[in-house]
Amino acid sequence: MQAKEIITKKRRGEANSREELEFLLKGFLSGEVKEYQVSAWLMAVFFRGMREKELSDWTELMWRSGSTFPRDRALKSRPHQYWIDKHSTGGVGDKTSLILVPLLKFVSEKYFPEISIRIPMVSGRGLGHTGGTLDKLESVPGFQTRLQIEKAQEVLEAQGFFMIGQTESVAPADRLIYSLRDVTGTIESIPLIVSSIMSKKLSENLDGILFDVKTGLGAFMSSVDEAKLLAQGLLSVAKSHGVDAVALITQMDEPLGYKTGNFLEVEECSDFLKGFPRDKNLEKLILESASWMLFLSSRKKISLKEGKKVCLEVIEKGEAHPLFVQMFESQGGDFKGFEKERESFRNKYLCFDFKAERAGWISQIHARILGVLLIDMGGGRTTKEAKIDNKVGFEVFKKTGDSVTLGETILKVYYKNPQDLEKIKSNLLEAVKIESGRIKNVAPVLIVREVLE
Amino acid sequence: MQAKEIITKKRRGEANSREELEFLLKGFLSGEVKEYQVSAWLMAVFFRGMREKELSDWTELMWRSGSTFPRDRALKSRPHQYWIDKHSTGGVGDKTSLILVPLLKFVSEKYFPEISIRIPMVSGRGLGHTGGTLDKLESVPGFQTRLQIEKAQEVLEAQGFFMIGQTESVAPADRLIYSLRDVTGTIESIPLIVSSIMSKKLSENLDGILFDVKTGLGAFMSSVDEAKLLAQGLLSVAKSHGVDAVALITQMDEPLGYKTGNFLEVEECSDFLKGFPRDKNLEKLILESASWMLFLSSRKKISLKEGKKVCLEVIEKGEAHPLFVQMFESQGGDFKGFEKERESFRNKYLCFDFKAERAGWISQIHARILGVLLIDMGGGRTTKEAKIDNKVGFEVFKKTGDSVTLGETILKVYYKNPQDLEKIKSNLLEAVKIESGRIKNVAPVLIVREVLE
Repeated sequence: MQAKEIITKKRRGEANSREELEFLLKGFLSGEVKEYQVSAWLMAVFFRGMREKELSDWTELMWRSGSTFPRDRALKSRPHQYWIDKHSTGGVGDKTSLILVPLLKFVSEKYFPEISIRIPMVSGRGLGHTGGTLDKLESVPGFQTRLQIEKAQEVLEAQGFFMIGQTESVAPADRLIYSLRDVTGTIESIPLIVSSIMSKKLSENLDGILFDVKTGLGAFMSSVDEAKLLAQGLLSVAKSHGVDAVALITQMDEPLGYKTGNFLEVEECSDFLKGFPRDKNLEKLILESASWMLFLSSRKKISLKEGKKVCLEVIEKGEAHPLFVQMFESQGGDFKGFEKERESFRNKYLCFDFKAERAGWISQIHARILGVLLIDMGGGRTTKEAKIDNKVGFEVFKKTGDSVTLGETILKVYYKNPQDLEKIKSNLLEAVKIESGRIKNVAPVLIVREVLE
Repeated sequence: MQAKEIITKKRRGEANSREELEFLLKGFLSGEVKEYQVSAWLMAVFFRGMREKELSDWTELMWRSGSTFPRDRALKSRPHQYWIDKHSTGGVGDKTSLILVPLLKFVSEKYFPEISIRIPMVSGRGLGHTGGTLDKLESVPGFQTRLQIEKAQEVLEAQGFFMIGQTESVAPADRLIYSLRDVTGTIESIPLIVSSIMSKKLSENLDGILFDVKTGLGAFMSSVDEAKLLAQGLLSVAKSHGVDAVALITQMDEPLGYKTGNFLEVEECSDFLKGFPRDKNLEKLILESASWMLFLSSRKKISLKEGKKVCLEVIEKGEAHPLFVQMFESQGGDFKGFEKERESFRNKYLCFDFKAERAGWISQIHARILGVLLIDMGGGRTTKEAKIDNKVGFEVFKKTGDSVTLGETILKVYYKNPQDLEKIKSNLLEAVKIESGRIKNVAPVLIVREVLE
């Protein structure tokens, strides 16, 4: 077998066999197949795609490149538990995981004791213009995202979930392939995105998974059609490996919720779970996600309607907030310290009020522009090693579809570097649009479900 | 500027600017742009192609990677001379250059003294299943294809032409890019083929060039449409660099002429220029090529009709044969030694007569199958370093369209290794087809002209 022939086959639009994919990946890891051959193959995959069987094989090979507990043994060892995770393809202001995990665990324990959920959540850091769950968690001082495997198991056993980063031993081939894609213009390929996500998720030995595939101005998949293709790929690989799965396709045109920025988003989550006033789109996404996860975990016994009703009650009563606090404290986080910082940090930061230059209705708050601006302000990384300032960010008072009067504050920016002000102003002028007429199509949290039977 | 952005632009189907191409190529040569980035870009070029300006820029950058005499100074230094070369995209049994060069030089000197042609011919070796002019020339013992640049100039001045191989200093970037394409499945891209050919040809500081673009069963471009695209690419780059050019698109379904194999082909050329009976398709291609080259060299003063008439007379009278002998001797070849070997070698080789198993008309003699078989018999290289046996080959007595009776010899195979016989028999059975009815569409030397105004 020759790498050249494998590349040429893909270039012609033919499917590669499992043996060919194995030859390519193992050769890549051992150095026998060269990086320049793999990158040419990746580009051919970009243009030619992958068939269902190929994608499943490639994902499995990447997953098996790491040390993984045998799936059937894992599932047998815990017949009464249901392990579930959630994956978002990345957005701006997307803090749903931080709310969902304690909410779901609390609801299932108190209201549905017949099911036994475990949420071994493995998250990532900010990527491109989007934020990452790990970065948000670390806004609480002391929080540890890197746990030893024994410690992680302990936490999972004790409270039913953990929130950690990917360990070195998980799908190492994916890390190497991803690095190669990153410098060869081959990130934006749906099968390659699917295999990268799923090679890591399969390592968790899940029973079920919820995908939140974002679409719109602030998403990697800007069109709904692309998002659907990605959702289909994710569902197909999950299915071929015996994992229950549901995909939501959700709109990501404006930042999700009222706050964007790592520290500010933890504030918002805390208030949300206390039952304080909250953004209706964020609430909708939380209820939709939580109810689907309950539906899967109960093996379809808890209806979506029932799940939503119970979750909403728990949110309004603030019942899950103690578990939110425990989520941080169980992994070394100082939540009291966080609350103290919350009281004081606004005095230490510069603040700019972005006001409406005319009266009207807000027709756009461009998520990508705000995401990029946040990084430029120090709230995200421009290189892998960069340290981030977790306090910079935005508080959004008006959302798309809301009316504003002349001079009314639309959003508030917290920033550190005085030189950033000009850039902040010009970016906001570009990001925020006001129309004279009422906006008919307010961008909702559009949800299209792609359910696996 | 980032390599990643350059690749992504091409992947999206946009044109790369000259600055981007320069960044990519210079970075590749210096090691700052990695091979895995260039190979991904090459694959994107395969799928997206190149626009005219891009192709011209990329070719020029590759050409300028070598040491080349400034073109305008070169042209100014020899106002009364016309430097011309010919390039074939490769075929089986294609020995036209060996006949064309002495014929053209003789005809121009004797019959058209008003023009002063120089033919600085730079040829290659066998590639894939096709033969190479250098390998054929070396069938004459002692012939030197590697001349020092001073010696080459001397030969050119003395007799008006030379026949050499590419030197190390010519377009070194092309050699590196070609090696990368070879192992990444990116050989079969028209713009990349064009730029590879033209980067070398531009180094010759030519006034004019004739392209022989082969199409059919034994050509790299199997369809006429692909061949036309390749021809257009070659002509466009020639035009943008001020080189007169004509492209012939010629059929390469069966081996050209009566003999295939390095030594045997020199025999055929020698006999051809003595005016002996010859294959009509080979004669047609020679007359077509020679007359176009005279047309260009005379700046359109010698008509095609006149050129053909004079050339045919010279061939029939055997007038150019002494110059054919001189072509070898001027570069160290022992032509007498060649003629002695010619008398004796047939006794030293095994010989197989392939006979018609039925009466009928020959409908196919598959050039690619014979080309591959020739290499397997030792007549070509399977690795770069392999030594070739220049005497093995085929003598073809019947061509496509000819009638045969049962048991009549269609072709004769000279081979060395007795173990090859079975393979020879089975390959010939596959390559040669006989039909019961007369063949209507005898594969002609199909000629489509693409003339540069």
